[in-house]
Amino acid sequence: MAILVVGSVAFDSLETPSGKRERVLGGAATHFALAASFFTEVRVVGVVGEDFLPEHEAVLTSKGIDTAGIERAPGKSFHWTGSYVNDLNAAQTLATDLNVFAEFEPKIPASYLDSEYLFLANIDPVLQSRVRAQMPQVKMVAGDTMNYWIGAHRDNLLKVLRELDVLLINDAEVRMLSGESNGLRAAEKVMDLGPKSLVVKHGEYGSTAYLSSRSFTDSPKRKAFRAPTLPLGEVVDPTGAGDSFAGGFYGYIASQPTLTPEVLRKAMFYGSVLGSFAVERFGTERLQSTTRAEIDERFQHLKEISHL
Amino acid sequence: MAILVVGSVAFDSLETPSGKRERVLGGAATHFALAASFFTEVRVVGVVGEDFLPEHEAVLTSKGIDTAGIERAPGKSFHWTGSYVNDLNAAQTLATDLNVFAEFEPKIPASYLDSEYLFLANIDPVLQSRVRAQMPQVKMVAGDTMNYWIGAHRDNLLKVLRELDVLLINDAEVRMLSGESNGLRAAEKVMDLGPKSLVVKHGEYGSTAYLSSRSFTDSPKRKAFRAPTLPLGEVVDPTGAGDSFAGGFYGYIASQPTLTPEVLRKAMFYGSVLGSFAVERFGTERLQSTTRAEIDERFQHLKEISHL
Repeated sequence: MAILVVGSVAFDSLETPSGKRERVLGGAATHFALAASFFTEVRVVGVVGEDFLPEHEAVLTSKGIDTAGIERAPGKSFHWTGSYVNDLNAAQTLATDLNVFAEFEPKIPASYLDSEYLFLANIDPVLQSRVRAQMPQVKMVAGDTMNYWIGAHRDNLLKVLRELDVLLINDAEVRMLSGESNGLRAAEKVMDLGPKSLVVKHGEYGSTAYLSSRSFTDSPKRKAFRAPTLPLGEVVDPTGAGDSFAGGFYGYIASQPTLTPEVLRKAMFYGSVLGSFAVERFGTERLQSTTRAEIDERFQHLKEISHL
Repeated sequence: MAILVVGSVAFDSLETPSGKRERVLGGAATHFALAASFFTEVRVVGVVGEDFLPEHEAVLTSKGIDTAGIERAPGKSFHWTGSYVNDLNAAQTLATDLNVFAEFEPKIPASYLDSEYLFLANIDPVLQSRVRAQMPQVKMVAGDTMNYWIGAHRDNLLKVLRELDVLLINDAEVRMLSGESNGLRAAEKVMDLGPKSLVVKHGEYGSTAYLSSRSFTDSPKRKAFRAPTLPLGEVVDPTGAGDSFAGGFYGYIASQPTLTPEVLRKAMFYGSVLGSFAVERFGTERLQSTTRAEIDERFQHLKEISHL
């Protein structure tokens, strides 16, 4: 079933220990959509500038991703400049040029209104709420956020959290949102804010899903689930790893008839697998060349290195 | 089958967000021995001072741990003072009083010479080598080390590494020993130094075993294995978590007839379980009260939260 994702479609200029790239296609919605496209139909709502060329759009449409909701605005696309030279696990932002994204007002095409799954990528929570309100009939809503919104736009974010079935954030964001350093207690506090389930991404160390009695129709027997990552010999560019995780995770869920605990566990593994591809090349390069057979192979590998 | 462990038996003065404790029983050999004692016979080689009282020895002997190899020397026992107030994941050393440990010369009682498993806890690699040389007939040798020996005593340490079946160290130590930041490449470089297998502890995020064709008689199909940790609502004192992991890991291995890939995977889980108990109270308090039934329950729980 179709996922509607709203978020950034952008260009990234990146420096990592593996090299430099200027203005490669990026953005949370882009990485998410590519990762999810291996599992289900994906529709993107975003905004780009005049520098977004047919070749960039083709990256998405060649994977069957619906780009009808990507608005063209006069000016330049969102452009992020970042470096991982000092630490591959922590991006250092050198410049954030919002450009056309500064005035982004998500518009949902009529053809998207029957989407059953909604993903609110990391954007202003006011916009997340507005999109959510326009999609009252969706079966499931998942979302992401970041430190900036947690800090300076907390009240707006809290409104979004109350509407979420699944919140996907990283360790630092969970700590910041909860004011709690212990991982389990922090997760419980975040779930008290609204999300029925919480997926915490631990970067190179995997991820943990925290489940409550509200996560499924039946109360889950397992209150948590941990998915590992694959040991990777080379991490070229971590940009978009979390969005690719979310895309693999949510794409798999949307491809299944109902969300059961087993589906959620497998979705965590698929998230980890898609994240592992994303980081192997700059930008979206590796996700573009990934095949479903490779995904299934890594899924199996992940199971082998984590199951007794 | 019996494990001989050589290492520190000490007193720790600790401050953590949960409180303060003065001079509680600690030391790598103590935590290791207690954790391993749930699985097999354990024999300790170490040195203590006149402050090591019958009540301290009883902590070990009440678990069936053989203390014949704990030498009594005039003076005080090794005393470590540390704080985790700023960061539960990184001990801040406030004082290291080696006391009788400064002149430690391990002496192996005749009754220990038939031990089939040897664990070289974190001590001067010169002493590790000396003990190893006195136990030529052991079936398996595992060991630990730390940043101090990696930095200032590298050549001595390299001699020990060539003799190890399993090296158990943490992420920072693997990076320092290999000069490599990528986890997989770092692990491969460390294994090139000698250890047949490498277990890397990721603190609250679990652990990874790296296996080579030399790890088992048959070449392993799985080149790595990842064990998660249990989400814990309260970490009172992380001191000894790594030693307790090693004790659970090696204790289980020593309790099995041969080291197979399956035994190694289960050993990783038992290591994680014993580490989870160790941190729940100050010092050895929680390991003292742990039961085998609790261990098996957590083992099962760990499986449930990590298996599809």
